[in-house]
Amino acid sequence: MNDSNTKKCRIAVDALGGDFAPKHEIIGSLNALKESNDFELILVGNKDKILQTAKDENLSIDENIIYHAPEIINMHDKPIDAIKNKPNSSIVVSAKLVKENKADAFVSAGNTGAVAAVSTLLMGRLPNVERPTIGSFFPSKNNATFVFDVGAFVDVKPNHLFGYAILANIFVKELYNIENPSIALLSVGEEDEKGNKLVKETAQLLRNSNLNFIGNVEGRDILNGKCNIILCDGFVGNILLKFGESVPGFMKHLLKQHADKNIFEKIKIGLFKNTLKKALSPLNPDLYGGVPLLGINGITIIGHGSSSPLAIKNMILRAKEMYNKNLLSKFEDSLKNYAEKK
Amino acid sequence: MNDSNTKKCRIAVDALGGDFAPKHEIIGSLNALKESNDFELILVGNKDKILQTAKDENLSIDENIIYHAPEIINMHDKPIDAIKNKPNSSIVVSAKLVKENKADAFVSAGNTGAVAAVSTLLMGRLPNVERPTIGSFFPSKNNATFVFDVGAFVDVKPNHLFGYAILANIFVKELYNIENPSIALLSVGEEDEKGNKLVKETAQLLRNSNLNFIGNVEGRDILNGKCNIILCDGFVGNILLKFGESVPGFMKHLLKQHADKNIFEKIKIGLFKNTLKKALSPLNPDLYGGVPLLGINGITIIGHGSSSPLAIKNMILRAKEMYNKNLLSKFEDSLKNYAEKK
Repeated sequence: MNDSNTKKCRIAVDALGGDFAPKHEIIGSLNALKESNDFELILVGNKDKILQTAKDENLSIDENIIYHAPEIINMHDKPIDAIKNKPNSSIVVSAKLVKENKADAFVSAGNTGAVAAVSTLLMGRLPNVERPTIGSFFPSKNNATFVFDVGAFVDVKPNHLFGYAILANIFVKELYNIENPSIALLSVGEEDEKGNKLVKETAQLLRNSNLNFIGNVEGRDILNGKCNIILCDGFVGNILLKFGESVPGFMKHLLKQHADKNIFEKIKIGLFKNTLKKALSPLNPDLYGGVPLLGINGITIIGHGSSSPLAIKNMILRAKEMYNKNLLSKFEDSLKNYAEKK
Repeated sequence: MNDSNTKKCRIAVDALGGDFAPKHEIIGSLNALKESNDFELILVGNKDKILQTAKDENLSIDENIIYHAPEIINMHDKPIDAIKNKPNSSIVVSAKLVKENKADAFVSAGNTGAVAAVSTLLMGRLPNVERPTIGSFFPSKNNATFVFDVGAFVDVKPNHLFGYAILANIFVKELYNIENPSIALLSVGEEDEKGNKLVKETAQLLRNSNLNFIGNVEGRDILNGKCNIILCDGFVGNILLKFGESVPGFMKHLLKQHADKNIFEKIKIGLFKNTLKKALSPLNPDLYGGVPLLGINGITIIGHGSSSPLAIKNMILRAKEMYNKNLLSKFEDSLKNYAEKK
């Protein structure tokens, strides 16, 4: 196993993915290059549109880094139809670049379902992976808390969750330098007998492994940072993720509502705004950027439709780190190890 | 059907339930009486302890309102064993008072599982109820958003969720004066085809009913107040509830962490504390008090172990309102209606 890749990472960035494409994608990509020029950028999308936007924004861009892909998959397109109906879309073309070894990683703020489905279908799964998974970073009192799965699959079996644990373990260990990440199952109580069938059966598998399984945790333990990796099915994970993402907006709503009641309170809130923003900055999803799709034979990072340039930049740097640390072959080795023990 | 009860409501308050019992229970109960003396209070618990605490707190209490129950069910007791092992506990005795028509409602901040199990076993279910359910209020941009179920049962079937909808519909309609509460299923996307088997099958039942079913909502729609009633199984609901409850504490942690960095920021946060507290007051669970256990042949409201006197007071007033508005017979009528249509 190579501990690190020495070749420069080539990253295909879907320039036409997000709600503010290609502007945020271009700015984010150029900022990533400014921060670290040890990767090769490939901007995938409509060439004219990319050049025009760069001109409008007074950004200088090398034409050669653009890979023309005229079609766009929008948020309403059905993921499974994407490859057939829009073969020249930025998403399909980007994933193909990875499949054909013309790129090492793919970053997109486009239609999540389409990015996940196209990546999985074109790049294929790693050996011994039944189901790929999407993991999301949650801010917590602990610095690294990840929830797997947050939306790849809603109906899952115990061995799927166990597979997520193997992938998540390598991911968190390598990217966060945590030797033996703690892993828990999300449930309705800490006691072993509490939970649904999926939780109880997965607990058996985890207990019999050499993963650092600490048992069940509850909803409150996510933000409290009780462990590094929290496992659940994609139905629960997706609902939690979207609920969590809606919290800052709801706080803003409550502050605004309060400010509207009284001019003095309004002034106070105005004066305090920056402090509050700084204090609550760990809640800003852009700092993390996007979520990794693990279990596929390639590196794909998926961002929000509303990704800011900061988010795009961070997604690119994360993809580069995954490549540089040779995560794919580490996943493969670990998966093989567990498969042999069965 | 009687639209309202004219007899004075008799409320059994578990005086030894919560973490701060009996102090919070006594203060909350007396405050409820101060606010509205049109109910009869029965404080259930160890008589000496209640009288001693009242004395320590300089509160005058009429000895006759105490119903002696010397045993205590603590947070570690197994719910199902409670009736057999601790028949003289405040929880079992309170539920028995309702069963024997010596009380009309039961309010407790004790062991949730025990309160739910004992209430269900002793009071029994209403006709046509397969499963009782616990519903929780969530703060939202809309004023009334309830999630059912938040923890009564983790493995459920579509007809159970449909039953929750019937109960929740009456509860929200009567207590919040909303003529036709909007009802949605919690899922991973708004589209009908998104969701797990439970969601898809329950949607069929709801679509064929005359309930105001608006389709699927996502995790973000809870705080956004997209509808009045959100249905999910107790596994998802319980995780969400506990996650949501942990949010204010996490905010505090982030503010403290930020304050510790810099004395000026610390001062600013100190000055702003009250405004923030007021603005975010809708997040205070004590305002709502507790969660109702619906579907049983009685009125039971369950509070947090850490319930404040304010929470206890509000739980009592809510129980009284449920009784005064004759909710039990309204539940029964509605359940019968739907059963006949089958």
